[in-house]
Amino acid sequence: MKDLKRLGERRIIELIQSRLDPMPRTPIPFNDDVAAYEIAKGNLVVLKTDMLVGKTDVPKSMTLWQAARKAVVMNVSDFAAKGVQPISALVSLGLPESYDERDIEQIGEGLNAGARQYGAYIIGGDTGEASDLVIAIAMFGMAEKETLMLRNGAKPGDIVAVTGAFGKTSAGLRILIRKFEAADEIKEVLVNSVLMPNARLKEGLILCQTKSVTAAIDSSDGLAWSLHELARASGVGMSLEKLPIAVEAQRFASANKIDPATLALYGGEEYELVLTVKSEMWRKAETAVKRTGGSLLRIGEVTSGTSIVFEASGKMTEIPSKGYEHFKK
Amino acid sequence: MKDLKRLGERRIIELIQSRLDPMPRTPIPFNDDVAAYEIAKGNLVVLKTDMLVGKTDVPKSMTLWQAARKAVVMNVSDFAAKGVQPISALVSLGLPESYDERDIEQIGEGLNAGARQYGAYIIGGDTGEASDLVIAIAMFGMAEKETLMLRNGAKPGDIVAVTGAFGKTSAGLRILIRKFEAADEIKEVLVNSVLMPNARLKEGLILCQTKSVTAAIDSSDGLAWSLHELARASGVGMSLEKLPIAVEAQRFASANKIDPATLALYGGEEYELVLTVKSEMWRKAETAVKRTGGSLLRIGEVTSGTSIVFEASGKMTEIPSKGYEHFKK
Repeated sequence: MKDLKRLGERRIIELIQSRLDPMPRTPIPFNDDVAAYEIAKGNLVVLKTDMLVGKTDVPKSMTLWQAARKAVVMNVSDFAAKGVQPISALVSLGLPESYDERDIEQIGEGLNAGARQYGAYIIGGDTGEASDLVIAIAMFGMAEKETLMLRNGAKPGDIVAVTGAFGKTSAGLRILIRKFEAADEIKEVLVNSVLMPNARLKEGLILCQTKSVTAAIDSSDGLAWSLHELARASGVGMSLEKLPIAVEAQRFASANKIDPATLALYGGEEYELVLTVKSEMWRKAETAVKRTGGSLLRIGEVTSGTSIVFEASGKMTEIPSKGYEHFKK
Repeated sequence: MKDLKRLGERRIIELIQSRLDPMPRTPIPFNDDVAAYEIAKGNLVVLKTDMLVGKTDVPKSMTLWQAARKAVVMNVSDFAAKGVQPISALVSLGLPESYDERDIEQIGEGLNAGARQYGAYIIGGDTGEASDLVIAIAMFGMAEKETLMLRNGAKPGDIVAVTGAFGKTSAGLRILIRKFEAADEIKEVLVNSVLMPNARLKEGLILCQTKSVTAAIDSSDGLAWSLHELARASGVGMSLEKLPIAVEAQRFASANKIDPATLALYGGEEYELVLTVKSEMWRKAETAVKRTGGSLLRIGEVTSGTSIVFEASGKMTEIPSKGYEHFKK
């Protein structure tokens, strides 16, 4: 096995971090979804960068317009998880030498579409030649330190919730890359979940306003990984009573004889929010999200344990801490 | 010729920009060295992203530590040209699958060295697999709108100046890549100018304070290109009386029978500042830079023309607008 795959993304980030002088008084822990800088008492500049790479993040059937849009949406999703409105973004573009004018226009249009859909603008960037398409987005926003939703505040008794059902991108990727079959009625939904992902920005912003959320993360590395990350950062466990599996993923799974829970738990590139909510404020949070046209699904409870267990029909299963980690296959 | 090389970097940026909704009330034109957002009257958040790509920006003899450091320095240089102190940076890393722990530690150490040398910190980032090494830096700082040095304020009569002599990186790259020879006494200086570039941050910050600068840019795309870019953005011409050629580049040129002016004018990856200064404030600017340990060299004057000419021994030569443009070879 190649070195990078053996190490895995988390270990790589640890290795880099171990070599960095930590910035004094940073308002957000290094490993959260975004970074921040306190420009005045309680006022934060929020920054995020994430990179889309052709080889690993762009299935063949994805257009350049879709790839560019997705590169922006990936970053918006991290802002959504913190409850922060993205204001503007810069783009570093690495372009293969075979690209022509039309390819580049498509990238420009996709970047713009991704940003404008969420009220942000692309305000600059740089470009260079690369062996493979690389779109690195640097996103900027402002927030109040008080209300920012971090990963590390979950408390036993909080409700574990998600903003949507899971498993569609896992199924969609299997259709696009591994040529699985799916019935016509669900195929489009599954494939579109991969090609045209959406960030839960409205949901994140309104939840932030309700001050009901104790910890939050986006689910881009998979549901299981996200739950474990919240639990680890907060020093808690979780007991799940329900797995949020999308109907289309359910149907795809039974037609292909796959375990639907695997699709939902260990997929990735699925941009829902995974949160813990103060139980006494659950109704308020749920109503607020509904008012934006979204939904908030209760899937379990935070415990004082250290593991994440799923209880169904009296049987307890532990959900292992694995996920869609880049490099590790 | 491949499509990307035919288009060239400037046209690619134009194509992208033509597809973007412009953000209302941006305090800096889209094409300047950095982008900015006005968070309060006169107060700017300054942002910059630039990407280092293994294939095009990293000669074989450059270590990963040096490559990572250079990726940061490239961005610091753009901040220097605007007179802005970088505060923090995020890193998007694309890593080839063959990299091992030691490689990644080297990258972490190089990033840290580049940031700390200029008083900044690396505060976050993301990583993914890529075919080739990609280090995209997103840099953040704060500035006052009033004092920011832009590209577009040069006026006829202003003095054209640079913070150092040119041609060393051109010579260094010829030694590293094209196996040119050089005498031992100058070889190290030339090669080091490529492997261990430095940004003129002290100079940029102090010049910004003197309020003597009317336009500024960094010279990463070559001296000729930078002069033309200032002239184009300001709607002026320039008359040069002297070409700032480094002694080592001079010696390298005569030993190898190359025109030294070509080395100085059309090189690249050389991180000096190119500026125009109000003539009545020249002495003040020069003294201020000297006090930081740097130097400010007068090389000519801004004219009301449209071309950039070099006058020596009564002969006028026009300096064409070409430079070290990525993609175009």
